[in-house]
Amino acid sequence: MRVGSFLIAAALVASSAACRPSPQSETPVQSDDRPQPSVAQNTPLLIAKQGSFFVGGRKIHSDTLSSFSGRSPVGTVTVDQMYVHYQIPVDAVGVPIVLVHGCCLTGKTWETTPDGRMGWDEYFLRQRHAVYVVDQAARGRSAVDISAVNAVKMGQAERDRLPPLFFVSQEEQWLRFRFGPEYGTTFPGQQFPTDAIDEFWKQTVPDWIESLPSPNPTVRALSELAQRLNGAVIVSHSQSGLYPFSAAALSTEGIAGIVAIEPAACPEADSDLTPYVKIPSMVVWGDYVAQSPLWGPRFNGCQAFVAAVKKAGGQSENASLTAHGFAGNSHMLMQDLNSLDIAQWLLTWIDRHVKSATRLE
Amino acid sequence: MRVGSFLIAAALVASSAACRPSPQSETPVQSDDRPQPSVAQNTPLLIAKQGSFFVGGRKIHSDTLSSFSGRSPVGTVTVDQMYVHYQIPVDAVGVPIVLVHGCCLTGKTWETTPDGRMGWDEYFLRQRHAVYVVDQAARGRSAVDISAVNAVKMGQAERDRLPPLFFVSQEEQWLRFRFGPEYGTTFPGQQFPTDAIDEFWKQTVPDWIESLPSPNPTVRALSELAQRLNGAVIVSHSQSGLYPFSAAALSTEGIAGIVAIEPAACPEADSDLTPYVKIPSMVVWGDYVAQSPLWGPRFNGCQAFVAAVKKAGGQSENASLTAHGFAGNSHMLMQDLNSLDIAQWLLTWIDRHVKSATRLE
Repeated sequence: MRVGSFLIAAALVASSAACRPSPQSETPVQSDDRPQPSVAQNTPLLIAKQGSFFVGGRKIHSDTLSSFSGRSPVGTVTVDQMYVHYQIPVDAVGVPIVLVHGCCLTGKTWETTPDGRMGWDEYFLRQRHAVYVVDQAARGRSAVDISAVNAVKMGQAERDRLPPLFFVSQEEQWLRFRFGPEYGTTFPGQQFPTDAIDEFWKQTVPDWIESLPSPNPTVRALSELAQRLNGAVIVSHSQSGLYPFSAAALSTEGIAGIVAIEPAACPEADSDLTPYVKIPSMVVWGDYVAQSPLWGPRFNGCQAFVAAVKKAGGQSENASLTAHGFAGNSHMLMQDLNSLDIAQWLLTWIDRHVKSATRLE
Repeated sequence: MRVGSFLIAAALVASSAACRPSPQSETPVQSDDRPQPSVAQNTPLLIAKQGSFFVGGRKIHSDTLSSFSGRSPVGTVTVDQMYVHYQIPVDAVGVPIVLVHGCCLTGKTWETTPDGRMGWDEYFLRQRHAVYVVDQAARGRSAVDISAVNAVKMGQAERDRLPPLFFVSQEEQWLRFRFGPEYGTTFPGQQFPTDAIDEFWKQTVPDWIESLPSPNPTVRALSELAQRLNGAVIVSHSQSGLYPFSAAALSTEGIAGIVAIEPAACPEADSDLTPYVKIPSMVVWGDYVAQSPLWGPRFNGCQAFVAAVKKAGGQSENASLTAHGFAGNSHMLMQDLNSLDIAQWLLTWIDRHVKSATRLE
């Protein structure tokens, strides 16, 4: 046996020894019991299977695919599909986890942090969950429809037909993502790695969401993906925060749990709560939320929703990280300096609340 | 030891036994010596490290980031960066391989094939090479600049300022990618998995390349990436075919070898060949090329370039797969039914021609 293989075998033993606590524990989470990441981060990753595919999509005919000669303007293209990259660990024991990014970002959100630390995608994998990272429809590797832009350029439509696009400036993002009270300054105890902010800015992409059909095609694609997986926890963020709830309203099938990280909205408290009562859910908030004119009201809306679900007999929680021993978290808490502690805390919640059809032990 | 770990240990033994032939072999490739993929495809993947980052990028100021209220139009964004996803296998022995997609596509090109088989990204990894898959600047997870679209929508610019975008129709792509002589029919012996063509169409995205600065920012980003890796083989495809040569013209540092898969162009035969003489290179072509009015002339251009490099003392090859025992290959040969055989053949070429600074044995 070669030296490298010997090291792997040794790492396997270490990995087997690093199983997280039994999910059967009934002890409630205390504000002072913040768990530490329990998996060695430098041992080899053991992947049973990895790959990528698309969910959804529809063919459209267009006469304005190109505005210049040498490329035919007429024909068929497919849009509204959702790109999915997945990895399944050896010895998977947990429920699959689907990670859905927010506004102006892509699946990159969940990968390596701007300062080069492990992303949640790899952490959940090391904790023996299959992980599915998506690019929302019309974002990243999921195509957009440019027909209207070319129609205007070719003089076939007026300029008001141009799609409503936006690209969030770094100055605006700094405030919205609560890195600090004003651009370039940070909140006391801020956990976001602002020393690496330029690498974070490179993650930001233009957003075509306002040009998409309603409901957003990502919602149906998430529903279809969850059904294919026969039970998954959908973790959404910000702009996509509502999507797993909307998917559950289409069908609860396959949605084993919902974790909404600082959602732009929760369902209305006086809406039909039937689907949400059936699915354990948690809404998660970072720090500096109450004083934010953008996020404070969103927190309150989710608070009302969670209260209504609980009253109707469901399992739901509106969780401030500050009440669970975490301080200083930004809106990009999956990239904050304590991101893996939060990931581990989420897994503890999943273990306690989510029944997994795929659990093997 | 648990059963799963036992299986992994068994797989490790199998993996160690599956090393490919010694790269010291001097036997020339024969047309009938097409190698078979030599790595078990269902054993666990052993990853030492994986993650993602960006290379390049520049900050720009814009007054037209958004055309509608609620989103500030003014501020700073970063564009022209190149997204890179990487995986480094345990016991890496080969030179790192950088995979660069072509027109209207993203890094998805190199992942799972439309019919669900292993992509080259995983195959090279299993053959113990570190693999870097990029999204070209302004494609996939690498941001585009939408300022001009919004400027026109907001009435601040005329419609001719709109960027020259194109989205290649499925009908046009069928012909350009040589799936068959006309849309819906295939060449005899065609290797592309056209039964799964709808999954392939979902890989196609609009192309902003004509709106980018010249030279394409991807060229400098590839040069920077190769230098960071201290020696890499850059594998380009189609639209990006010329890019590794252009990167070599900037600096040969870090570029250990070039494999151009059906490039849109090779450097001119009468250009300054100094950088290309220093780097082993191979240009690879599928089937049905000679009769194609698009690809036939491109083949001939590369033939002249390769002849000039060889005359000047360099190692270069213009390789038709049909002369090496492969028949029926399309332009998307990394997704064809015999894609892993071709991948293995490429690795044999790399082993014979590329000196690796990172080779460990």
